[in-house]
Amino acid sequence: MTKSAAICGKLLCIGLLICFHTSLNSQSSEDALMIRKIHDQTLANGSSYDWLNYLSEEIGGRLAGSESSSRAIEYTSELLLNLSDTVYLQECFVPFWERGAKEKVSISGDHIASIELNALALGNSIGTDGEPVTAEIVEVRSLDEVRTLGRNQLEGKIVFFNRPMDPSLVNTFQAYGRAADQRVAGPAVAAEFGAVAVLVRSLTTSQDDIPHTGVTQYSENAAKIPALAISTQDANLLHESLVNGSVNGSIVSNSKMVEERKISYNVIGEIRGSEFPDEIILVGGHLDSWDVGGGAHDDGAGCVHSIQVFETLRQIGYKPKRTLRCVMFMNEENGLGGGKAYAENAAKNHERHIAAIESDSGGFTPRGFTADAAETSFTDYFARIMQWSALLEPYYLLISKGGSGADINPLKEQGGLLIGFRTDSQRYFDFHHTSQDRISVVNERELKLGGAAMTSLVYLLDKYGLE
Amino acid sequence: MTKSAAICGKLLCIGLLICFHTSLNSQSSEDALMIRKIHDQTLANGSSYDWLNYLSEEIGGRLAGSESSSRAIEYTSELLLNLSDTVYLQECFVPFWERGAKEKVSISGDHIASIELNALALGNSIGTDGEPVTAEIVEVRSLDEVRTLGRNQLEGKIVFFNRPMDPSLVNTFQAYGRAADQRVAGPAVAAEFGAVAVLVRSLTTSQDDIPHTGVTQYSENAAKIPALAISTQDANLLHESLVNGSVNGSIVSNSKMVEERKISYNVIGEIRGSEFPDEIILVGGHLDSWDVGGGAHDDGAGCVHSIQVFETLRQIGYKPKRTLRCVMFMNEENGLGGGKAYAENAAKNHERHIAAIESDSGGFTPRGFTADAAETSFTDYFARIMQWSALLEPYYLLISKGGSGADINPLKEQGGLLIGFRTDSQRYFDFHHTSQDRISVVNERELKLGGAAMTSLVYLLDKYGLE
Repeated sequence: MTKSAAICGKLLCIGLLICFHTSLNSQSSEDALMIRKIHDQTLANGSSYDWLNYLSEEIGGRLAGSESSSRAIEYTSELLLNLSDTVYLQECFVPFWERGAKEKVSISGDHIASIELNALALGNSIGTDGEPVTAEIVEVRSLDEVRTLGRNQLEGKIVFFNRPMDPSLVNTFQAYGRAADQRVAGPAVAAEFGAVAVLVRSLTTSQDDIPHTGVTQYSENAAKIPALAISTQDANLLHESLVNGSVNGSIVSNSKMVEERKISYNVIGEIRGSEFPDEIILVGGHLDSWDVGGGAHDDGAGCVHSIQVFETLRQIGYKPKRTLRCVMFMNEENGLGGGKAYAENAAKNHERHIAAIESDSGGFTPRGFTADAAETSFTDYFARIMQWSALLEPYYLLISKGGSGADINPLKEQGGLLIGFRTDSQRYFDFHHTSQDRISVVNERELKLGGAAMTSLVYLLDKYGLE
Repeated sequence: MTKSAAICGKLLCIGLLICFHTSLNSQSSEDALMIRKIHDQTLANGSSYDWLNYLSEEIGGRLAGSESSSRAIEYTSELLLNLSDTVYLQECFVPFWERGAKEKVSISGDHIASIELNALALGNSIGTDGEPVTAEIVEVRSLDEVRTLGRNQLEGKIVFFNRPMDPSLVNTFQAYGRAADQRVAGPAVAAEFGAVAVLVRSLTTSQDDIPHTGVTQYSENAAKIPALAISTQDANLLHESLVNGSVNGSIVSNSKMVEERKISYNVIGEIRGSEFPDEIILVGGHLDSWDVGGGAHDDGAGCVHSIQVFETLRQIGYKPKRTLRCVMFMNEENGLGGGKAYAENAAKNHERHIAAIESDSGGFTPRGFTADAAETSFTDYFARIMQWSALLEPYYLLISKGGSGADINPLKEQGGLLIGFRTDSQRYFDFHHTSQDRISVVNERELKLGGAAMTSLVYLLDKYGLE
């Protein structure tokens, strides 16, 4: 290449860069205005808080298969009917588990008079058949410790998992992720070595009297044994008692799996795209919640965030080019029946989801989005959405790599970008899976900002696509 | 320059860049580790929540000049004594205003039976001398509207300022800033045109029964008239009543300025720098609060954030090169006596503050820092601290241009960088200047993260300075 050719080439590059920059700038400024409008509109006129109030306080806890889950299906169908071109129910199979009459856990021992603990049976756990299970309690900190102690020391005992969530981690979901194996797999592993029941320290960094439930998964290789969470303060008390001598536990749980496989539904609302109707952008949360509390943050918030996207787009008069789908997934908490059915149907119908956004980290102030995709396309997709960073940063919305959501994750192998909407995580585990997860611990403005954040990203995805 | 010289020059540049980049990277990774350690330590072992609990619940509301403000001076002096090389009190002059017996506002009219409103006298306002002030109420939306209506329509009337905070603004401080003129200047302007008293809609986007107090400033050109805030729901009710016909108000307030000029103190703790003791880095909040509530978010949080900086640095064993000063400013709420005295003393003693950070936006999840400085040095300073963005972003701490804080602002003309520590603003005005501003509305983890954020920036400022 001659020197003059090189210079010409360079000038051309610069020229192209300027053109690109100018067009990007005018586009950016139009987009910035639109995102501003989305936020203004949602904060001033969004209905998400009222919807959540109804879901949490009028319908309340709504575990898959329950009567209240049916009411939630009906209620959100009605909401979506007003905001969508079509609304339909998608069949899925869910387990139907019930807590039954209040569980009861008490401890007594050499150095402690009988005292009742704040406890909740774990989701999907079996009960005690009307009789108390009474045995000596053995404290452990990990699944590995159970394996080390072995049948010799655990047979006939109640195993007490007491490894706390690490309070020093800024992201509380990370701390949860590192402690949750005790609840999810602890009962199955303890049963392998002959334990008769399991108590688990509640998964929260709060020190209080509130027990946190959540799912446990039995193994096919071991007996099913009763399993309950106790509050962190009670876990501390039990630990102290065990330091001083032996302690016996007495457990009554009336929980049971009523039906292993029951028909339920995802609720789906759809706005058909005007230019590329076959390209689907999904927003969703899960409609089921634990039976205690109102499922306000987990995950009523994610449901109303998603419906808010439809309402806000309508309020600002935006007609999508691509098809938008709002999905209320069923049974995230104790089986994922809804997420699996959705992905199976999408595959069967050869649907093309260019992007799916799940909100399942509560109705707190937005923090941004984590992005995930199949390995082959991730780099391209990520580069694409990172171009929008400057538009989102004024709203403190940061984009990073990370997981998306349990309900949309089964879509991963079908290609497309999977996105988790993220909120500030500091208060989430104060309420997670407890009786406290009600509208009273949701701030209206924080919740509305979540809907605005998701609408902003949907707007960009719809306008520009991912190619 | 010959071509080969140019190439050599270019290579040299590239070489230097690589060296710089490598050193920056190893430095950055050391800094990243330190900032991680600061966060870990503060979340796991920080005492700020316990301190705030004492300030808010044991000492409570602590308006300048009050007995409880003296207790707060004593308490924070003791805390700082354990964490500083020296602690001293700095004299300042403050007004001493008291609310007196509970104020009472009622309305009645053609279409409304007598009803009592939720009201709080504004800070520094005069009372009604034991007798009710009764007059017809005139609603306005702005100071300009008062001037337009004029003496003709306002003489002998109660002026009711009812322009709401704009809920559509994401940053609630912006919405506050755009509405606060009604409270601060409304009574003075209304008095100019003969009004006998003022009611102001509470400055919040919440719709509830809680009145929000705050300072008002009388003018030397007009009479001092009683002035009170009423809750937003009562403001709505009053507005509706006025739409239907004329409404009379009856106001009793027992507030008074007890002393115009009383001696009080800033509390100052100092850790002397090992290498550059004459370069001061200040952290601070204001120790006074309104008399109602416990001054938990406003600004107990800022005080304990600042003391947390000293505790965390000690816990991680960091010895500052520069002098760190922790200042509990007195009288931010109704006079700024502490801030003025601090700046005067600093000027008199030819002290050099390279940076001052004020925390006065509550104990919510951190958002970052806003930076300000005299015009001549701002660009350089800002470029300097923006180099640290990548270190702070993982904690969602963003740096932007903006104001710092009322107490440190008087330092501006002395040079140096002024920084406002910013938190998520969505919930702030739910509690601001109300009976609700107590420890119960502060989240422990969110509060601790504030201390960690400030400590992180202090660490960088101390290590690198601003040159």
